[in-house]
Amino acid sequence: MSPPSPSVYIVEDEVLVGMELSERLHALGYRVLGRATGGDEAMGALQRLRPDLVIADIHLGTEPSGIALAEHLRRRDPAVPVVFLSARSDCATLDAARRVAPAGLLVQPWDERALHATLQVALARAAIERQREAAAADRLERELRRAAARHEASLYRMAAGMAQAFSNLLGVALAQIGLARHALDDPARLTRSLTEAEATIATAGRHLEFLRRYAGGGRPSLRRLDLGELCRRAAGDAHALLPAGARLAVVTDSFGPLVVGDPEMLAMAVGELLRNAGEALPEGGGEIELWAQEVTAGEVAALRWWPTDWRAGSGRFAAITVFDTGEGIADSDRPLVFEPFYSTRALGRGLGLAVVVAAARAAGGAVAVQSSPGSGTALRMVLPIDAGGDA
Amino acid sequence: MSPPSPSVYIVEDEVLVGMELSERLHALGYRVLGRATGGDEAMGALQRLRPDLVIADIHLGTEPSGIALAEHLRRRDPAVPVVFLSARSDCATLDAARRVAPAGLLVQPWDERALHATLQVALARAAIERQREAAAADRLERELRRAAARHEASLYRMAAGMAQAFSNLLGVALAQIGLARHALDDPARLTRSLTEAEATIATAGRHLEFLRRYAGGGRPSLRRLDLGELCRRAAGDAHALLPAGARLAVVTDSFGPLVVGDPEMLAMAVGELLRNAGEALPEGGGEIELWAQEVTAGEVAALRWWPTDWRAGSGRFAAITVFDTGEGIADSDRPLVFEPFYSTRALGRGLGLAVVVAAARAAGGAVAVQSSPGSGTALRMVLPIDAGGDA
Repeated sequence: MSPPSPSVYIVEDEVLVGMELSERLHALGYRVLGRATGGDEAMGALQRLRPDLVIADIHLGTEPSGIALAEHLRRRDPAVPVVFLSARSDCATLDAARRVAPAGLLVQPWDERALHATLQVALARAAIERQREAAAADRLERELRRAAARHEASLYRMAAGMAQAFSNLLGVALAQIGLARHALDDPARLTRSLTEAEATIATAGRHLEFLRRYAGGGRPSLRRLDLGELCRRAAGDAHALLPAGARLAVVTDSFGPLVVGDPEMLAMAVGELLRNAGEALPEGGGEIELWAQEVTAGEVAALRWWPTDWRAGSGRFAAITVFDTGEGIADSDRPLVFEPFYSTRALGRGLGLAVVVAAARAAGGAVAVQSSPGSGTALRMVLPIDAGGDA
Repeated sequence: MSPPSPSVYIVEDEVLVGMELSERLHALGYRVLGRATGGDEAMGALQRLRPDLVIADIHLGTEPSGIALAEHLRRRDPAVPVVFLSARSDCATLDAARRVAPAGLLVQPWDERALHATLQVALARAAIERQREAAAADRLERELRRAAARHEASLYRMAAGMAQAFSNLLGVALAQIGLARHALDDPARLTRSLTEAEATIATAGRHLEFLRRYAGGGRPSLRRLDLGELCRRAAGDAHALLPAGARLAVVTDSFGPLVVGDPEMLAMAVGELLRNAGEALPEGGGEIELWAQEVTAGEVAALRWWPTDWRAGSGRFAAITVFDTGEGIADSDRPLVFEPFYSTRALGRGLGLAVVVAAARAAGGAVAVQSSPGSGTALRMVLPIDAGGDA
């Protein structure tokens, strides 16, 4: 064995034993950086010398013991292996040694070959452990960089989406005001153009209101409602949005679940879920299922919800779930689908599933996605069930 | 030593040695799950039995050797420790053993006490390694969750900021159109209201243009310009924005550095940097320095730039740097300062340092922040120097 000779520090209260050990190690090709007869002396020296390995007698004549020394060393630098020497192998000694997880333990009588083998194994394990620590740190750094890049990309996408979508609306409003300017002598046309400009600006305002609610603000008009009924109605309205060949099954009980939410927002959210499912279907059609049902705490606990700080609490939950038999969503895209302006450019569509987040947040709920490429997608909105007596 | 008795599997080609080892382990309190006389037999059994520890003779009579078996095991499950037995401690054997970093190596002759000590140490190390792996995985998960929460908070902040800021502008435009409606019989007032509405919408459009450029889009009007001169002018314009008691020092050479950028965007960016510095100063004033200078590749390499995928390349760089003697920015806030709508609500201000990002991106540059609480802040924009001959 001929790598660069490793450096060793010896802690042994019996001076002659320490000297002999030192000579043997030297003969085996180790560099002995020094020797101490007590733990205190060793602690000072080790800080300075930083050996590759420490050999310590467990039972030093004075405190601290070899065990205490090893504990201290491990707290300071877990990468430095400690090999214990012991004249005893009773349960108490082994137990104490085991608790500080030494790199090796040589019970007397040991010979030079056992010493060498133990040190080599200890050094090899220490090298492996350092590699693993470094690999873990690398992985953390790499993952955090990837997360930062995704974060940045989301901000840019949102800024670009807003700029594109609102510029279009503002351009239309400007053109309508321009038409009004050229109709000063025609009150009817003038008034019509002004009305159109107002309507365009109001549309932009409605989109902004959704952004506000997506962010958890705004003033939703909450009332108690039957989620199953809401889904049946929304599905009726949504049929026109679905591609030819799409089959839609709506699964609800005849009554409930009852939740407290903003009916308009929730209806829009179900519409967006269905439109999204329709767009995911392959050419020529496929299946969409819309479920409104009560779900168990276990089902709620099993998924990763957005907003990420949403906690289910102890109540009961209703879920609206839309399954489609489309392509599925790649792992990397899954967290993005609820972000504004993900995947589409038009304003209404750009806010797409962000509308679902807005509706869920307004009602104290959350959204989740389950999907893998090839196996279709399930988008799910969960809302607290209204257990209250009088509505 | 009396924890739940650990399970062991033995790989030893000499049947009698294996039987004796098995008996000794049993007497020491281990559960012997089984024995194999060859590596192939062991691999199948180990997959099924999953022992806490494997004892393997290095020199098995047939292939695969104990070394190959340990390598195979480590690839499949690095958490299972392997203790080698060997009749030899020559360099070749030790070297081969070391490469697979076993949990222990017992060189014959070894006694029961050495066996027990080695196994206990190996099991304790394995437990520690599992704990460390679990801690590393936990840390990764925790950090990624924190990153996801920051990401989400940024999206909500941006959505809320956009909603707030543009709602105000659209409200003003609607009011102006409303005034026009009520002045149908007064062409002068009507025209004035329409002009004001157009101006308000145009203001919103300019903000959207900045969002577009923040996202890396839009069409900047690039031309060659003297960055020092631009900074001196922008500093002159910015004086009115600074709080009373703020002292501003502008440090530039009399000529250059020359860059290619959009003069209007860059001037706005410098204005934002100075306004930001002014706001960071403590009550009663403080110092602001504005530098325009050429910087070394080393200085560029030393900072974390935004956009995060920006790479300096091999050219020369000019930097605009604004130092302030204010409070400094907390670690956790530092990545956020270049995000739209961070820390302020008004639209112009909300886009604040995002304007700096927009100007830097448009000119092929990037931005960075250096700060720590109590030590002030340096915000830096770096741009490629225009080395070209004719402008």
